[in-house]
Amino acid sequence: MDRADATPRDAAAWADPPLQGWNVPLIRNGEILERPVDQRTLTQRYTGEAVQFITENRARPFFLYFAHTFPHVPLFASPEFRGRSPRGIYGDTVEELDWSVGEVIRALRAADVAENTLVFFTSDNGPWLTQGLQGGSAALLRDGKASTWEGGQRVPAIAWWPGRIAPGIVRDPANAMDLFTTCAVLAGAALPSERPIDGMDLAPVLFGGAALPERPFFYYRSDTLAACRLGVFKLHFSTQNGFSPTPPARHDPPWLFDLGRDPGEQVEVAAQHPDVVERILAAVHAHQTAMQAGRPQFD
Amino acid sequence: MDRADATPRDAAAWADPPLQGWNVPLIRNGEILERPVDQRTLTQRYTGEAVQFITENRARPFFLYFAHTFPHVPLFASPEFRGRSPRGIYGDTVEELDWSVGEVIRALRAADVAENTLVFFTSDNGPWLTQGLQGGSAALLRDGKASTWEGGQRVPAIAWWPGRIAPGIVRDPANAMDLFTTCAVLAGAALPSERPIDGMDLAPVLFGGAALPERPFFYYRSDTLAACRLGVFKLHFSTQNGFSPTPPARHDPPWLFDLGRDPGEQVEVAAQHPDVVERILAAVHAHQTAMQAGRPQFD
Repeated sequence: MDRADATPRDAAAWADPPLQGWNVPLIRNGEILERPVDQRTLTQRYTGEAVQFITENRARPFFLYFAHTFPHVPLFASPEFRGRSPRGIYGDTVEELDWSVGEVIRALRAADVAENTLVFFTSDNGPWLTQGLQGGSAALLRDGKASTWEGGQRVPAIAWWPGRIAPGIVRDPANAMDLFTTCAVLAGAALPSERPIDGMDLAPVLFGGAALPERPFFYYRSDTLAACRLGVFKLHFSTQNGFSPTPPARHDPPWLFDLGRDPGEQVEVAAQHPDVVERILAAVHAHQTAMQAGRPQFD
Repeated sequence: MDRADATPRDAAAWADPPLQGWNVPLIRNGEILERPVDQRTLTQRYTGEAVQFITENRARPFFLYFAHTFPHVPLFASPEFRGRSPRGIYGDTVEELDWSVGEVIRALRAADVAENTLVFFTSDNGPWLTQGLQGGSAALLRDGKASTWEGGQRVPAIAWWPGRIAPGIVRDPANAMDLFTTCAVLAGAALPSERPIDGMDLAPVLFGGAALPERPFFYYRSDTLAACRLGVFKLHFSTQNGFSPTPPARHDPPWLFDLGRDPGEQVEVAAQHPDVVERILAAVHAHQTAMQAGRPQFD
């Protein structure tokens, strides 16, 4: 974020953040274009670049990774969107993102490649709850970003491909790592063979309406495995609210929740499902036995 | 509920409650028909009575107050519905209620009075959270039954009158007391004049698509005014989780939440809206000045 020293740290002060409060550079291919950039312009400028990229590459296969800055704090919207939403600046930035997605879809259609393109929209994590109304909401899910409760980990996703993806809702979870595998398979590329690939090809669920095979999901906080989900059940070994100064609470025996009946993780049910606990512990054991820790990429 | 002494008090044990565990009578017009009644039969028998009442009274004006026993614990469903829902016995009872409503609608249509009848479906309070998975869920709303947080007080409602109520969603709150006024006005009856009537005629919002005038809502816990809502804002003077052994927490200065932006009551915003706090305090003062306490009806 590169917050300037004079900028208040208080989330409430960021409801109308000073334009010069962050020394953020705008970079294209390693070249700094502006610093600090006027962040109110970012969503529109990113969108313009994305549309140009699609237009220029319409005649050949392309992959566009389009990561927006907002609705991460500090929040900025263009004058066209500022004040438009009843949800305040947070809603304004979301409405501008919605506009941006519309422009991408429009560009794909204008370039006549919509029926040959998978569009996948998702988020990296849940809301930053200590930012108050500027941090978003996980609705009924428990806690938020930086927590291994569902509010920190579960996000919605939308997949769009006219003529190939039928309208519908799928409640089975997938994982951002699946996008690597899915895109490689769709492009006809070979997956790396010298290491295990954790992602799964989502083609059956996207194109065929078929369920994915059951598999465990591992919830890490830093290097610590905090929870594991298998089917509708999730087993917690430790829990901590996001950005909480309180250390993690260890659970031994671990806590079990039935996400199918209790997505808000309110009712602990380990005593009612000892067989499920055993199955998840076996999956965790297999995972930890097979795991070879890599070198951290930012060392 | 009339729980028998031998019946466990533990909510978990009620997941499959013993039929003889509650000494509940089934009463028609003061006459006990069965005791204990087989509670699995209640939803179907109530529904049969309701359908018969509609059929018998089709030729004249009628008012039917149809209060179901479930999904209050202990939960029972008929054999036709037991095990049908992925949400367990709670979901089974909800599915049976859904069937019951369908039977009422069918009876109104069969009696050819559907286009002359207002059907209003709602609940008395939020979920009983200490009952775990048998208590229901308030989704993103905070806490549940017996609390003045929204999870205890705010419930959905559905109004149906073919040809008079256009399909749509209204987010403005109303109050169960409004049903008295609305029904009296619809029936052409005079409202009592010797006392203030707190309910408001919902006709504008039901039939005209118009917003109701802004008015304060007062949240009581027993005889104590715990909170007041005006527009999208809600001011708490004291809060307590439902059925909590912890005494209420008093808030002086009171806590303000913006239910429009923050329906989960997570972010206290009194400091940002001193004018709103003043307006709500004035409404509370007017309410308390005008109030004449009645005699408790169960003394």
